[in-house]
Amino acid sequence: MKIIIDAFGGDNAPIDVIKGCLLALEAYSDIELFLSGNEKILKEVAAENNIDISKIKIIDAKDIISVDEDPKEIRRSKNSSSMAVGMKALRSGVGDAFVSAGSTGALVVGSSVLVGRIHGIKRAALAPVLRTKNGCFMILDAGANLDCKPEMFVQFGIMGSVYAKRVLEINNPRIGLANVGTESSKGTESHRYGYKLLSNCKSINFIGNIEARDIFFGKCDVIVCDGLSGNMMLKTAEGTAKFLISTLKEIFTSSVFTKFSALILKDQIKKVKKTVDYREYGGAMLLGVSKPIIKAHGSSDANAFKNAINQARICVKQNIIGEMSKNIAEWMGG
Amino acid sequence: MKIIIDAFGGDNAPIDVIKGCLLALEAYSDIELFLSGNEKILKEVAAENNIDISKIKIIDAKDIISVDEDPKEIRRSKNSSSMAVGMKALRSGVGDAFVSAGSTGALVVGSSVLVGRIHGIKRAALAPVLRTKNGCFMILDAGANLDCKPEMFVQFGIMGSVYAKRVLEINNPRIGLANVGTESSKGTESHRYGYKLLSNCKSINFIGNIEARDIFFGKCDVIVCDGLSGNMMLKTAEGTAKFLISTLKEIFTSSVFTKFSALILKDQIKKVKKTVDYREYGGAMLLGVSKPIIKAHGSSDANAFKNAINQARICVKQNIIGEMSKNIAEWMGG
Repeated sequence: MKIIIDAFGGDNAPIDVIKGCLLALEAYSDIELFLSGNEKILKEVAAENNIDISKIKIIDAKDIISVDEDPKEIRRSKNSSSMAVGMKALRSGVGDAFVSAGSTGALVVGSSVLVGRIHGIKRAALAPVLRTKNGCFMILDAGANLDCKPEMFVQFGIMGSVYAKRVLEINNPRIGLANVGTESSKGTESHRYGYKLLSNCKSINFIGNIEARDIFFGKCDVIVCDGLSGNMMLKTAEGTAKFLISTLKEIFTSSVFTKFSALILKDQIKKVKKTVDYREYGGAMLLGVSKPIIKAHGSSDANAFKNAINQARICVKQNIIGEMSKNIAEWMGG
Repeated sequence: MKIIIDAFGGDNAPIDVIKGCLLALEAYSDIELFLSGNEKILKEVAAENNIDISKIKIIDAKDIISVDEDPKEIRRSKNSSSMAVGMKALRSGVGDAFVSAGSTGALVVGSSVLVGRIHGIKRAALAPVLRTKNGCFMILDAGANLDCKPEMFVQFGIMGSVYAKRVLEINNPRIGLANVGTESSKGTESHRYGYKLLSNCKSINFIGNIEARDIFFGKCDVIVCDGLSGNMMLKTAEGTAKFLISTLKEIFTSSVFTKFSALILKDQIKKVKKTVDYREYGGAMLLGVSKPIIKAHGSSDANAFKNAINQARICVKQNIIGEMSKNIAEWMGG
């Protein structure tokens, strides 16, 4: 299978993207890789670092779209950026999946405009996976669509369910709706109507509402929500963890006694930190697009790129788009 | 001044409510206290516990509204509950402020229906105060109004600013709008229009958007948001903290070495836990009602009730309702 990677997305591009590709080619024999980006620069960087990139094909793209730019520019002034060119190649069939660590906003806009959505899907959703103590869970939408119609909750549920089953290997994944309370009467009109629609959807295992305080406690595998709620949950979790860990550090270095104790616990504390860092668990999937697109984290290193490529590889191998399309079509028909 | 307390709100009612009242009467010489609730039961409980409640006046109320009941019942079948009777007494002028640890939903509904709002205020907001490392911040709305119009953000900002100044004693409090990004173009239409309105409001120090990941880092003193975002932020922070601390505990008890180290750090870890526990910082104010109403936490003990009574006392003393009304009127006029 063929995977296209945006060579100029992320803080460590292009060198770590190149290295990640080589790691992936070593690890997986069933893939062919394409880098979208300025061919001249890529060859120069490879030569400077004594890296042989002859096994990677290059799709030349002159420009770069940065994270500071208006995402909408991907269809206008940044139409020849490495991200746009990669996505156009994806659409035209050059590749089966696309990986980028570039601007999330541009990727969301580009995926709809340059690649296209699954038939019947209103909007693509950003779906990161977070760790819990004994497993993981997915949140969608994490911020691509701030306002969501109730029908979108069901579409998110169907797509998230397929992803959890086929990629996260969770049997009969439990789908929950993020809400302010567990009773079906809770939330806005959208929540209440969404609850009904989710309950009536045959292809998913909907277990009801889930409160934000319970998301880390393994109560469900896929959390469906509007992008505003998703953004608030993800960023609050990130901030709270950062705040707690910095407070811990301060306390631990406050006396010789605590310093000594903290030294012993150092590795353990790192483990805790990792637990709540959602960046650790691969890239975020962009669900609803007609081909698999993985948003790798902006700070991805070579190994993270390798993992994101593998994530894309599994999506293709498991034909998750085919299964999502089928389940969406059935839901629309029923 | 006269403060009315719901004798049958909270997990430890009525005994801890009574004890809290006595603690408050001891500590503050400028208050008179009224307990709303079943007089017979209150006298029996006092007698059983050898407590002299002759200094507390009782406003008889036959019934109780529980947290499991539909909040709207406070205006119908639960119209003679201790909470409803207390709020009606507040409206009629028997008291200057009201404290309850009962159902938040019933308190929100009752405050609007039985007490009434400040002139011009569309909806009352729930405003808890959370600790940070070096101070605190307030979030409103924390869940009373899931959908908010942009005008409500400004009203929240005006009321939160007065509260932060007069009760939290923060000079020139910084008001932030919770949003998915810091740029003024971010968020929904409501966010963007709300941003403009907040920028144009003269009586507040609006500092722009704040992301959920930054709320614990002292960037602003009052965070204005719709109730859905507020609920998501509060509950995610609560859940993340609980999750992290339980993970820490597990790690710390995993070996003799770590157990020993953790023992030394025990008190320090408790401190961290307290930092993120918003229940610790008094009750949540119900802002927008024409008289001060404090929602004490459901698990309040005698000391927590004493603190909530003091919070109500400061609100009355500082005439925060008067200042809020004036600032709201000026904003509507300008």
